Amino acid sequence: MCRWVAYRGQPVLLSSVITEPSHSLIHQSLHALEAKTETNGDGFGVGWYGEHHEPGLYKELRPAWGDENLSHLARQIRSKLFFAHIRAATGTATSRANCHPFSHGRFMFMHNGQIGGWSRLRRSIEAMIPDELYNDRQGTTDSEAIFLAALAQHAAKDPAGAMGRVLSEIVRLMQAAGITQALRFAAVMADGRDIWAFRWSTDLKSPTLYWKQIDGALIVVSEPLDESPGNWRMVPEGNMLMALGDSAPVIKPFMVEMPRAVA
Amino acid sequence: MCRWVAYRGQPVLLSSVITEPSHSLIHQSLHALEAKTETNGDGFGVGWYGEHHEPGLYKELRPAWGDENLSHLARQIRSKLFFAHIRAATGTATSRANCHPFSHGRFMFMHNGQIGGWSRLRRSIEAMIPDELYNDRQGTTDSEAIFLAALAQHAAKDPAGAMGRVLSEIVRLMQAAGITQALRFAAVMADGRDIWAFRWSTDLKSPTLYWKQIDGALIVVSEPLDESPGNWRMVPEGNMLMALGDSAPVIKPFMVEMPRAVA
Amino acid sequence: MCRWVAYRGQPVLLSSVITEPSHSLIHQSLHALEAKTETNGDGFGVGWYGEHHEPGLYKELRPAWGDENLSHLARQIRSKLFFAHIRAATGTATSRANCHPFSHGRFMFMHNGQIGGWSRLRRSIEAMIPDELYNDRQGTTDSEAIFLAALAQHAAKDPAGAMGRVLSEIVRLMQAAGITQALRFAAVMADGRDIWAFRWSTDLKSPTLYWKQIDGALIVVSEPLDESPGNWRMVPEGNMLMALGDSAPVIKPFMVEMPRAVA
Amino acid sequence: MCRWVAYRGQPVLLSSVITEPSHSLIHQSLHALEAKTETNGDGFGVGWYGEHHEPGLYKELRPAWGDENLSHLARQIRSKLFFAHIRAATGTATSRANCHPFSHGRFMFMHNGQIGGWSRLRRSIEAMIPDELYNDRQGTTDSEAIFLAALAQHAAKDPAGAMGRVLSEIVRLMQAAGITQALRFAAVMADGRDIWAFRWSTDLKSPTLYWKQIDGALIVVSEPLDESPGNWRMVPEGNMLMALGDSAPVIKPFMVEMPRAVA
Repeated sequence: MCRWVAYRGQPVLLSSVITEPSHSLIHQSLHALEAKTETNGDGFGVGWYGEHHEPGLYKELRPAWGDENLSHLARQIRSKLFFAHIRAATGTATSRANCHPFSHGRFMFMHNGQIGGWSRLRRSIEAMIPDELYNDRQGTTDSEAIFLAALAQHAAKDPAGAMGRVLSEIVRLMQAAGITQALRFAAVMADGRDIWAFRWSTDLKSPTLYWKQIDGALIVVSEPLDESPGNWRMVPEGNMLMALGDSAPVIKPFMVEMPRAVA
Repeated sequence: MCRWVAYRGQPVLLSSVITEPSHSLIHQSLHALEAKTETNGDGFGVGWYGEHHEPGLYKELRPAWGDENLSHLARQIRSKLFFAHIRAATGTATSRANCHPFSHGRFMFMHNGQIGGWSRLRRSIEAMIPDELYNDRQGTTDSEAIFLAALAQHAAKDPAGAMGRVLSEIVRLMQAAGITQALRFAAVMADGRDIWAFRWSTDLKSPTLYWKQIDGALIVVSEPLDESPGNWRMVPEGNMLMALGDSAPVIKPFMVEMPRAVA
Repeated sequence: MCRWVAYRGQPVLLSSVITEPSHSLIHQSLHALEAKTETNGDGFGVGWYGEHHEPGLYKELRPAWGDENLSHLARQIRSKLFFAHIRAATGTATSRANCHPFSHGRFMFMHNGQIGGWSRLRRSIEAMIPDELYNDRQGTTDSEAIFLAALAQHAAKDPAGAMGRVLSEIVRLMQAAGITQALRFAAVMADGRDIWAFRWSTDLKSPTLYWKQIDGALIVVSEPLDESPGNWRMVPEGNMLMALGDSAPVIKPFMVEMPRAVA
Repeated sequence: MCRWVAYRGQPVLLSSVITEPSHSLIHQSLHALEAKTETNGDGFGVGWYGEHHEPGLYKELRPAWGDENLSHLARQIRSKLFFAHIRAATGTATSRANCHPFSHGRFMFMHNGQIGGWSRLRRSIEAMIPDELYNDRQGTTDSEAIFLAALAQHAAKDPAGAMGRVLSEIVRLMQAAGITQALRFAAVMADGRDIWAFRWSTDLKSPTLYWKQIDGALIVVSEPLDESPGNWRMVPEGNMLMALGDSAPVIKPFMVEMPRAVA
């Protein structure tokens, strides 16, 4: 499974969240002992809002812990809203274009999970992306396809509704194709000001999603970054976290209309 | 423009064609002075038939001339049929998945040229690839799409017919979309035994395509590899080279049915 | 710690040892759960004797398990003697030049271990490399320095003696610098025909070194590659394995003269 | 030859100098037609002073023009003093560690030129670097060695004197080794506030070095960045440019004591 962290708060150096804490994202990817899965080494990415209205992205395939470029960038880039993601590939190629986060205009997205039967459904899920967005598709992941499809569903105006419609349609396609594997989804999206994080699955086994507030900042993670997990709150299965403007984060149900199973 | 070479003959080390000649492919990419276009440095690839019935591929994004891995492989790998390609990207991303040659089963393909309006037509041209091949699409180039579409048109049985049908359909899509830019195409395909090379365009400005026979071997190139261009024969515009089994290469017209222009 | 495998026997595809077995080197690097240390993801390398009297090398920084080039090469390259190594960096940079195996002329070398106080001793240990070899130093690792120093000690004629003299001198330098950390050393060297593997340390905590013979082939590894460790024999602390020509491997003491400690 | 640019002035986005101008560094590396030498594609680097008292560095081996990371960083990083360098390797390996600029503490350095007979002199020139700096040597270039040697000669207090002593000693070593090739040197160094640029050679064929002031900013380049070369002033052979604090740049002789030739 992938691991990631999202930060929103007073502008801080990326290093304070990504590389420095004893259980930073880098540390996690290196010592992924607690996890029962593979280590996370299929590329990583960092996205941040800074000098430009569109987020900056830095992606690399060598392991994050040995990348001097990342060390330098983490202690030079200060941002009030940034994402970092370490990828564990699930069948698709290891390439920069397949690394998270993905961006489009001012939007940024990253994801942990899987679409059951992706290799069979790729074509029909990509068909959910309209022509004007399709040419921006750079890689071959399900994650990027979900993101572009959500943008087409007006994620800019109604992120939760758009994401719910996309997942609902994907489940419909899975059912139509007779796929019995699950769809599991934990993701976070931002527009430079607001953050939305989602946790949902068809088998109630969503990837984990935690958050905490500290010194006025919001941190959303796939797994706790430090050893006091008591401070981290879990977003429950089937819920979402919404942090608009300077408001406190709100947890509320994330509605995905389940299509009636094909008889 | 891209540069490439294809070899078929007695098994030789790749180095004898790729790295050693004074005008080898590597040399060309480094001293691309004669060419009026950009230098070729957006990744390269080598494909060869050897121990496995499917070709081996080696692709890399750093420049070919500085890649020690390539130096080693070129003097260790002996093959009777191999391709090498240095890419000049035309708008699509620089990634291994976008480097030529492409392979599928025992087939291998590489290409130099462009589809006018590719960014607008990508979606509809990809629709020419059936589901069972679509999931093998790794990158975002027009070249890979043409290759997979040709395989779907039974390139295994009738390479020239398949490629002609694909180009004809692409021209039809271009016309339907009102695209006035040209389609220019020079490509080579192999199946481990036979080689087919094609040269065609809508504006009679196809990329160049040369060949020669030397010591019983056939060499097909985008541009002459050595300083005696008199030895190289050009495949004329709208023609193809076909080298079946041990037979001598045959040059013959490459038929692409031009759709009637939309009135 | 690094992990590696060396093979000598009937020519086989690299894949049969590197990528295919259930506990292949690739598998080990991905699921490094048994190991109490970091996962192995700071680059890898493969070296093989084939068409050229000097070994071929392929090195890469992205993780071995996600490298399509390695997958292709492993099923295309057949060799009677090859090395593969997955690196866990111990302070030096992640670069191709720091990946094992190292080669010089017909010799090839790879290593697992550490020189206590390397960063303080680097200069004086490099001084053990004569000028005519020093210019071939490509990276900054202790491993490459040991290899070049051993070649200077006539490793071509007397590998065990040369390696013993180098380690003895390093221990002397460590003592002179007042370094109390250990020197731990497990390494393997080959010349295209013979293999020598060494296991030695100043604190009797050498990295592990195993071997087995199967179907007439010799396999030497840092850690057992499959689940029947009973078949693997350990080279005892302070011993070496020597496999000359077609002879059966011989285990015998590896003599390193310990300098008298500085009073 | 390498190409580079140094900027000092009002904080600007790197993109305004590196990627955007019609004759930006990126453009130069892609269309290096005017240059009679090889194109510049053996890695590149960017160094800038920003959030940290030490400069940030970003280095990469794929061509600058196809690197999305660089595009993102260039439009996100704003700096009042930065360097960018595109490398043409002269015999040493293509690796990040060999890419310019180099940094140590608050100092940053980049270089264009060559030391005649470097492969024979490497050892003795490296001996000019004291132990406490030697361990920071990451690569194998002459450029990095000159930089570290200059720091050892108190470049922090007297940059011109230190650099002059280093070059003088190198010429002495060249003479002692009977090397008849030239030393050619054009370089720039900064400490986050001041800039020093040097142009010197043993055969009066120094690489070019230009500068101009525009809108209160100082730009120093290996070759003019735009088509009005009249605005660019050349630093004459054997001279240096010194820009201290907010003072206007001063051009003055760069003194390198020539050792008396060995009789």
